Amino acid sequence: MRMYDLIQKKKQGKILSTEEINYMIENYTNGTIPDYQMSAMTMAICFTGLNDKETLDLTLAMRDSGETLDLSGIEGVKADKHSTGGVGDKTTLVLAPIMAALGVKIAKMAGRGLGFTGGTIDKLECFPGFCTGISQETFIKNVNDIGIAIAGQTANLAPADKKLYALRDVTATVDQMSLIASSIMSKKLASGSDIIVLDVKTGSGAFMKKFEDSRALAEAMVKIGTMAGKSMAAVITDMDQPLGNAVGNSLEVAEAVSALSGMGPADLMEVVYALGTEILLLTKKADTGEKAKAMMEECINSGRAKEKMAEFVSAQGGDASYVWDVNKFPKADYTEAVTADKTGYVTGIQAEIIGNACMALGGGRETKSSVIDLSVGILLEKKKGMAVKQGEPLAVIYGNDKEKIRKAHRQILSAYTIKDNPPKEEPMVKLRISS
Amino acid sequence: MRMYDLIQKKKQGKILSTEEINYMIENYTNGTIPDYQMSAMTMAICFTGLNDKETLDLTLAMRDSGETLDLSGIEGVKADKHSTGGVGDKTTLVLAPIMAALGVKIAKMAGRGLGFTGGTIDKLECFPGFCTGISQETFIKNVNDIGIAIAGQTANLAPADKKLYALRDVTATVDQMSLIASSIMSKKLASGSDIIVLDVKTGSGAFMKKFEDSRALAEAMVKIGTMAGKSMAAVITDMDQPLGNAVGNSLEVAEAVSALSGMGPADLMEVVYALGTEILLLTKKADTGEKAKAMMEECINSGRAKEKMAEFVSAQGGDASYVWDVNKFPKADYTEAVTADKTGYVTGIQAEIIGNACMALGGGRETKSSVIDLSVGILLEKKKGMAVKQGEPLAVIYGNDKEKIRKAHRQILSAYTIKDNPPKEEPMVKLRISS
Repeated sequence: MRMYDLIQKKKQGKILSTEEINYMIENYTNGTIPDYQMSAMTMAICFTGLNDKETLDLTLAMRDSGETLDLSGIEGVKADKHSTGGVGDKTTLVLAPIMAALGVKIAKMAGRGLGFTGGTIDKLECFPGFCTGISQETFIKNVNDIGIAIAGQTANLAPADKKLYALRDVTATVDQMSLIASSIMSKKLASGSDIIVLDVKTGSGAFMKKFEDSRALAEAMVKIGTMAGKSMAAVITDMDQPLGNAVGNSLEVAEAVSALSGMGPADLMEVVYALGTEILLLTKKADTGEKAKAMMEECINSGRAKEKMAEFVSAQGGDASYVWDVNKFPKADYTEAVTADKTGYVTGIQAEIIGNACMALGGGRETKSSVIDLSVGILLEKKKGMAVKQGEPLAVIYGNDKEKIRKAHRQILSAYTIKDNPPKEEPMVKLRISS
Repeated sequence: MRMYDLIQKKKQGKILSTEEINYMIENYTNGTIPDYQMSAMTMAICFTGLNDKETLDLTLAMRDSGETLDLSGIEGVKADKHSTGGVGDKTTLVLAPIMAALGVKIAKMAGRGLGFTGGTIDKLECFPGFCTGISQETFIKNVNDIGIAIAGQTANLAPADKKLYALRDVTATVDQMSLIASSIMSKKLASGSDIIVLDVKTGSGAFMKKFEDSRALAEAMVKIGTMAGKSMAAVITDMDQPLGNAVGNSLEVAEAVSALSGMGPADLMEVVYALGTEILLLTKKADTGEKAKAMMEECINSGRAKEKMAEFVSAQGGDASYVWDVNKFPKADYTEAVTADKTGYVTGIQAEIIGNACMALGGGRETKSSVIDLSVGILLEKKKGMAVKQGEPLAVIYGNDKEKIRKAHRQILSAYTIKDNPPKEEPMVKLRISS
């Protein structure tokens, strides 16, 4: 078999066999197939596509390129949740303890933030002492004992995907649906859960700006997971403005903890409940959406969800006292309000710009090796649809550097659109997809 | 400027500017742009194409990536001829002396053979002592003095093309019309002639199998040359069977010399006259095709063409006595006839297979570093359209290794198709294109 012939075949729009895809991924991972052949292949795929079978084969080949997590030592049904990434997205921090408190096993591999989207692992490290690099033994023990563990991805999880993604990133071949779906799903399948629920973002602050693209991605991933024998569901949720009010690591963790006390922002809670409902239905812990939501509300109101959070933080070496007093999280030295320059209604907040403003404050990574400042961020006082008077604060900046604050200030102001009339109300959850 | 953005642009079918193409070629040649980005670009080009302006820009950028030959020291109009390559194609060896004898300055850079097509440079080296690596001074002096010089391509002629072609060759991106046209024309333009006449082959033994593709390539090259200020013409000629009767270096040179004595095979002479006519018309040495052909015939019949050949061989250090006695060329140790296994008409001779048979005998290069045996080859006794009786020789093999002869024998037999009825007659010259 020669990579040349596979490129030629795909260029002509022909179908690659399982054997051919396995050959390609195995030999690309071990370095036998050079980058320049693989980038010609991915560009050809951008034009001629992959069918469902090829997409599944690619996903499985990448899953099998490295370690796969063996969760057989965990009793019961294991659930995982994945988000395609957005600004202010602290859903996992709220959802995971609620699910664990309701008896669902949450065994999750999470990533760090890059660019303007934050990462769950960075946020968890706001709890002093919290360890995301726990051993597989501890990981499995914690899930068995308290129902929840969240660890950073091991280096050898789907290494083919890591290598291929890095190549696509520099050859303008990232935006192909099958390549995106297989990239995400190869890691999810390697992580070993039985149930995978996907939060596919859509809108200006999402990787997929257009609803139809988000839907196609969600459908592709659900199809792959189902073909691979997993219980799958996806919800498409709005990312036209940041999720919740807090953007920035410590601020987001504090908001998540508040949400577990019943004080979560409406949009965040809507996403949490939508994802939780899918999990409770798939685990058969609830038989209707109404019952699922009621179970989650009761779990919060009774304080069980927050207790689970404390238990989880503690089990991974973190200081759980922060769960009971969110004021303990380190504060940035300065705060500065961004005020409205006119009276009207907020008709939009460009999430991407808010994310970049947070990054400008030091709260995000420009490159993989950047060190981030966990204390900085932005609290949005006004969200889409709200009335605002000239001079009223739109948002409050938390920063440690006045020059950076000035820059973030300008960005935040430019992210807001204020008009005379309120915007059309859009549903937070746009679509549910299940297998 | 970033290569990433250029790939993205071309992927979306947008037009690259002159500045962008110059940036790309300059930085690819100097190694700043890696192969994996360039191969993504060429694959994108395979799908979205290049327009005439982009193709010209690419050609000029590649021309300017290395040395360009300064022929201003040569008086009069300089002509160059290029063939897209075929089996048994010794046209240059016949055409060049005729043109020089008629007062056209022939200043030609030629290549070596690779794969099943032979190279003019290899053939010229059949004359003992012939030097194809002459200095630029000698090159120009010879053209001024005797009207003709043929040298091997210098290493630094269009190095961008060399690098890009090598990449396309391993990434299945060779067969894109604009990339092929710009590759050929970058070298032709760097070689400095005023008139460029192209012999674009078509048929089973040609790089372009389909007439319409050959026509598109010819038109693209004529367009590029014209836009670059050259006088251009192209003829599309048949390569459905080998050209002439001889295939193999010494055998082909002997056939070319015979052709200069008026004993050239009809198909070869038709191509020689067609190309020569274009040159004589473009140089205004003839004002009609009839007059041009008559001039060439007279040049052969008078012996002036053959004398020019001897003069040319001698001027580059070769033993011109071989021109006067072709029996001096080294002979292979063994000859073996390939006889017809049935009676009928030859309806086809697959040129590619004959070329491969010659390569199997040792007469061609499998890789760039292969050493070739100049004495081996094949003389075709029967060509397309000829009647043949069972047991009659179709071809004679000249070889130095019995095992290789056996292999070539089988190949040659398989290249012939013999049927009960004669094939439809096809014109040798299928189309003339001029600017």
